[in-house]
Amino acid sequence: MMSSNIGPRPSDNGLSAAEELHLVIDERYLKKLCVPPGRTVRVKDYDTGWPESRELKKRGEEAARSRAEQALAASREQLKKAQDLLYAGDRYSVLIVLQAMDAAGKDGTIRHVMSGVNPQGCQVFSFKQPSTEELDHDFLWRCTKSLPERGRIGIFNRSYYEEVVVVKVHEEWLDRQRLPTRRYDGKFWRQRYEDINAFERHLVRNGTVILKFFLNVSKEEQKKRFLERLDNPKKHWKFSAADLAERQLWNQYMNAYGEAFSATSTRWAPWYIIPGDYKWSARAMIADIVARTIRSLDLRYPELSRETRRALKSARRQLERE
Amino acid sequence: MMSSNIGPRPSDNGLSAAEELHLVIDERYLKKLCVPPGRTVRVKDYDTGWPESRELKKRGEEAARSRAEQALAASREQLKKAQDLLYAGDRYSVLIVLQAMDAAGKDGTIRHVMSGVNPQGCQVFSFKQPSTEELDHDFLWRCTKSLPERGRIGIFNRSYYEEVVVVKVHEEWLDRQRLPTRRYDGKFWRQRYEDINAFERHLVRNGTVILKFFLNVSKEEQKKRFLERLDNPKKHWKFSAADLAERQLWNQYMNAYGEAFSATSTRWAPWYIIPGDYKWSARAMIADIVARTIRSLDLRYPELSRETRRALKSARRQLERE
Repeated sequence: MMSSNIGPRPSDNGLSAAEELHLVIDERYLKKLCVPPGRTVRVKDYDTGWPESRELKKRGEEAARSRAEQALAASREQLKKAQDLLYAGDRYSVLIVLQAMDAAGKDGTIRHVMSGVNPQGCQVFSFKQPSTEELDHDFLWRCTKSLPERGRIGIFNRSYYEEVVVVKVHEEWLDRQRLPTRRYDGKFWRQRYEDINAFERHLVRNGTVILKFFLNVSKEEQKKRFLERLDNPKKHWKFSAADLAERQLWNQYMNAYGEAFSATSTRWAPWYIIPGDYKWSARAMIADIVARTIRSLDLRYPELSRETRRALKSARRQLERE
Repeated sequence: MMSSNIGPRPSDNGLSAAEELHLVIDERYLKKLCVPPGRTVRVKDYDTGWPESRELKKRGEEAARSRAEQALAASREQLKKAQDLLYAGDRYSVLIVLQAMDAAGKDGTIRHVMSGVNPQGCQVFSFKQPSTEELDHDFLWRCTKSLPERGRIGIFNRSYYEEVVVVKVHEEWLDRQRLPTRRYDGKFWRQRYEDINAFERHLVRNGTVILKFFLNVSKEEQKKRFLERLDNPKKHWKFSAADLAERQLWNQYMNAYGEAFSATSTRWAPWYIIPGDYKWSARAMIADIVARTIRSLDLRYPELSRETRRALKSARRQLERE
């Protein structure tokens, strides 16, 4: 259902430079980023780099970057309009799930994609280590509480997917959840995927549109960004020694992510694996997918009844008489 | 899984009058109250009256009532112990869902069954007309927020089952939920049942034990209780003219309940249709089922490590030296 929102639609953004953008966020390319429901995939099957490296070679990184930023600006404009309509239409909400390895650029993506959007209609929730109260509930509970209201966009910076990724890599953490079973075998994880799929299907049926993005950076690129953090005193706070320990588990993480994407990319809530090594192209792609998806909903500004229109006319007359 | 908890188990309640209780809450009888998963049932297939009317005839109502009250007191004692263990064991939570027609005795059941239980380990939530914020989320959201924490008993006085009963009888109310679909056909309701089953299965997998009770009163008994409310000035507040309007829809309600029980009585979260015309027997039965279910869990008081035991010993020495 959602994956078909990426299909071609008439441009109404007033941009004549459509072919300019085309190079950055080609629709067919975006479709390829979507994990096909029911298919077993591996993260390494997906690009981390520039989607059209031929183009990058021809024009150079700076030119490509400026092109992507133009595309981002255009998508952001679209997103602003789409969100206004989402809010007025008051029938759907949008849930954006962002997952990634450390330093993949989740925070920056949220900042750049969502700047310009009315903050009243947009909420961001970051999920860190669960609290004692949260551990005393099922693993979907804390995210459920923070789901976006009808008419709004909610962004989960990390999410319940941590429960099948980081917790899968660190199985020993499960003991803190005090579950009825203590056998964390294949069946256990399949049940978690199943619960997540049923949860998302329920939300979609009730009007929440779900888009899930994995910012796919290469191990090499993460190293570069970690070194930048260590070099730049203003970025020191972003680095923790624990990040390095997790980096040692890179392959386990990729396996856990691959398994999760294979099991939970569904017709109703697809996963997109976004090439993350170039921040600017990643942002442009995500903004584009979100804007297109909202525009594809059957949204319209509320129609007024004859009585309401009459009341508005009379209000105008009353004000003008003052 | 849960339905098997009712099976015979050695009595450890120290009551010698077991055969006395037997007449009131016979185990085989309780098993029959459980809606078999996958079976299509009608509410009228189930008793509303006294389970062993032969006994009632023989001894008279007052004697039967006093017997049920003895049984209730015994079950309550069991429940108190079970809850203490539930709290200390800190691995499971118990969710009790109570549904019924008006004047069926939900409030009284909660008061009588749960009195004596430590209120710190027990939370009651009543779900009335949804608020605007609640309507802006999916229909499971407001109940999810109120789920019991690990180690506790949560009671839902009405619940998300209103969403497939009262809302099914008053389909026009669905418009306020502003759902993506406006076709409330068979498929729509099947999807709601499916979502509820998946939701409950997820909770059970993560340590919530779910027991669902329908207090089954006859239409005749409701009339009697309504008239009592009208006769007794202290009970006037409990009566509203709207109750009478709902009473006119009795058959629609019974059909909606029957369909919901058939679709959502599952191995992991069974429905019990409790005869409700005699309040005292209904309470005794529910207390018994809840107490047995908690006792059937693999709960134990936390075992202390050798270090902790040593620390306790040293604390004792220190205090005694003071």
